[in-house]
Amino acid sequence: MNSPHLVVIGCGFAGLELIKHLNKSPYRITVLDKNNYFNFQPLMYQVASGGLGPDAIAYPLRKIISKMPNVTFRMAEVLEVDLKNNTVKTTVGDIPFDYLCIATGAKTNFFGNKVLETHCMQLKSIPDALDIRSDILQELEKALSETDTGKIKRILNFVIVGGGPTGVETAGALAEIKNHVIPADYKELDPSLMQVYLIEASHRVLSAMSEISSAKAEEYLKELGVNVLTNTSVTAYDPSSGILTLSDGSVVETDTVIWTAGVMGKTLEGIDTHYIAKGNRYKVDAFNRLEGFENVFVIGDLAYMTADEAYPNGHPMVATVAQQQGRALAKNLLRKLKNKPLTPFKYFNKGSMATVGRHKAVVEIGKIKIQGYLAWFGWMFLHLMYIVGFRNRTVVFVNWLWNYFTYQRAIRLIIRPFRQNVS
Amino acid sequence: MNSPHLVVIGCGFAGLELIKHLNKSPYRITVLDKNNYFNFQPLMYQVASGGLGPDAIAYPLRKIISKMPNVTFRMAEVLEVDLKNNTVKTTVGDIPFDYLCIATGAKTNFFGNKVLETHCMQLKSIPDALDIRSDILQELEKALSETDTGKIKRILNFVIVGGGPTGVETAGALAEIKNHVIPADYKELDPSLMQVYLIEASHRVLSAMSEISSAKAEEYLKELGVNVLTNTSVTAYDPSSGILTLSDGSVVETDTVIWTAGVMGKTLEGIDTHYIAKGNRYKVDAFNRLEGFENVFVIGDLAYMTADEAYPNGHPMVATVAQQQGRALAKNLLRKLKNKPLTPFKYFNKGSMATVGRHKAVVEIGKIKIQGYLAWFGWMFLHLMYIVGFRNRTVVFVNWLWNYFTYQRAIRLIIRPFRQNVS
Repeated sequence: MNSPHLVVIGCGFAGLELIKHLNKSPYRITVLDKNNYFNFQPLMYQVASGGLGPDAIAYPLRKIISKMPNVTFRMAEVLEVDLKNNTVKTTVGDIPFDYLCIATGAKTNFFGNKVLETHCMQLKSIPDALDIRSDILQELEKALSETDTGKIKRILNFVIVGGGPTGVETAGALAEIKNHVIPADYKELDPSLMQVYLIEASHRVLSAMSEISSAKAEEYLKELGVNVLTNTSVTAYDPSSGILTLSDGSVVETDTVIWTAGVMGKTLEGIDTHYIAKGNRYKVDAFNRLEGFENVFVIGDLAYMTADEAYPNGHPMVATVAQQQGRALAKNLLRKLKNKPLTPFKYFNKGSMATVGRHKAVVEIGKIKIQGYLAWFGWMFLHLMYIVGFRNRTVVFVNWLWNYFTYQRAIRLIIRPFRQNVS
Repeated sequence: MNSPHLVVIGCGFAGLELIKHLNKSPYRITVLDKNNYFNFQPLMYQVASGGLGPDAIAYPLRKIISKMPNVTFRMAEVLEVDLKNNTVKTTVGDIPFDYLCIATGAKTNFFGNKVLETHCMQLKSIPDALDIRSDILQELEKALSETDTGKIKRILNFVIVGGGPTGVETAGALAEIKNHVIPADYKELDPSLMQVYLIEASHRVLSAMSEISSAKAEEYLKELGVNVLTNTSVTAYDPSSGILTLSDGSVVETDTVIWTAGVMGKTLEGIDTHYIAKGNRYKVDAFNRLEGFENVFVIGDLAYMTADEAYPNGHPMVATVAQQQGRALAKNLLRKLKNKPLTPFKYFNKGSMATVGRHKAVVEIGKIKIQGYLAWFGWMFLHLMYIVGFRNRTVVFVNWLWNYFTYQRAIRLIIRPFRQNVS
């Protein structure tokens, strides 16, 4: 087995990092993804709020992989994994493997509530983001042809459920639309009729960060006019009346609920549910091996590892863990070829950050906690630098400079089949 | 009637030019469009071929109109025009008018062939262009999982019907994908298996230009490897077998037919068919008035005017005519307010141009005919300058510089519901 065949399912942060570090290695690699692009999830909310076009945060996988002589890409969906016969069954045929790495990531968790799943918008993919963008803009258009103030309020109530980074950033971006886009482009609309709600079940937003950062983010959100409701959850939603019932018994009438309140692993058919742990994630050992397997690995959001001492309940489902696991697994796979012992994975938390709006961000690096201008510029800089590839960086940079100086969200295009019920 | 109400249906080249020249005039203007953006149709083929993202050629109408105090925008579809009661019935309610200007433009003409209409792709809107882009890329992906050479050829045969500028430009762009993108990103594919066909019923491509330009464009297309079939038309298409039958009895097996072989006016409900002339256009007098009406105007592709001496069979359905009619009507409407006599419309043909590929374009300005490098840079410069608004220009410019130096079509994203039948 001079040139073992590694199949990688999913090319997000984890999968991409893995193959980058196995570039020109002895492994023959086949990467499967249902999309032909990598997308930079942390900026998805910018697409949803019209700050960036989809091509600014998405990058063609073939372009990345064309520089990797030992890597082949297939745009495909996995139908089933056959661990007995070391084969992945896909929409483009059966693919045998020597090693398998599953890196399919996570999807939105509606906790089994079918009504919410059907009627809430989510923000986990580029089509999701484009859908939210079009929907927000259509609601603004719709409000203009409505005379009943009650109905206008319902149309212009935007509810975001979940106070994690995505929820906070989306709420902030929506507030900026209220504060800057409506007065400029929808002069007939009274901006005060638009209300943005951020609903968080725990007692603070950004609960993965410190109390100080949470408090500051909440302050920023309130400055922008967001109604922040902590200690609150959604108990029911009736899409026909638009009534969203909250845990305190109060209601918000709204046509737009954006659900960012949870994620769960994207598991695959053919793998016994016995391997599934909390959060719909696969149990892995310290080397990211699927429990009991020598040649099957799970990395990124989908991996549930309890062996890392500092994270006995699993790692947070964030990009930096995924990237580090991708790199660590690449190193271990190279060690394997040399019959060296594998190294257990340890997550090094470089810090975390979230942005609420212009000049309003919170950053934590170890014990250092900064907020405001400096944090925002730092956030901006890091996000720009992280985006894969020069072209995208330029486009994002030009876009952002433009947005910065004009307060505009330039990409305000509604691109989808025209909704007949606009009236 | 100090502040007469003008309703403009459609905000393409004609409608946009009209309102720009009535900005801050005594007219109260309501502009209706089913999209919330203006799109720069001449570069649509760039979106279809992955050279530009949709936001590079689309511009939010509200952003343009926000600077026009007397103009209101409504995103709406027109259900019916009631010329007796001077009212437009729309998806956002009934809108009465003093003056009406219809500028809905043109749509693809399949000459009544329902099979072609259902199974051919077209290139008249941004969703069309995105669909073509995704389809081309998906065909390339599909070819990779096919082993039968006959099937691969069918998948990689791309047929463009219609040798006007859109057809020529699309064929050229597809040839560049064959010549540059496949060798870079689809190394497993033999580029010679991809064939681009351009089918034109008349004896030459770009028949609106001179014989010299036509010949040069055909030469360029052949240099790029496009199969140019003139004096040829499509007689039948069977989508299940992929067999496209041509007028000379030959067949091409293909899954992708892009139809650019004709346009027809987009007429409206409620207006008697008696007013419809050749090309499904409304008959107008020398002032763009709908025949027999004092207050109803038709401008752009939809207007069929025989009064302009040099164009007894109507004007060509191109952007420059639309723009000039928009401007002319604006002037006439201002004259009307001052009770001055109206000026008849005369089209001033500034020339025409088409690009086949890098450094390959044909330009005609009066008697001057240029081809090649200079023509291409001229084409590029003019198109960049024409695009509305600074931001778009920058993005387009950066994109093009990038494409120019890398030979890449960067925006290679397949964004739409994943096709299950990819295998």
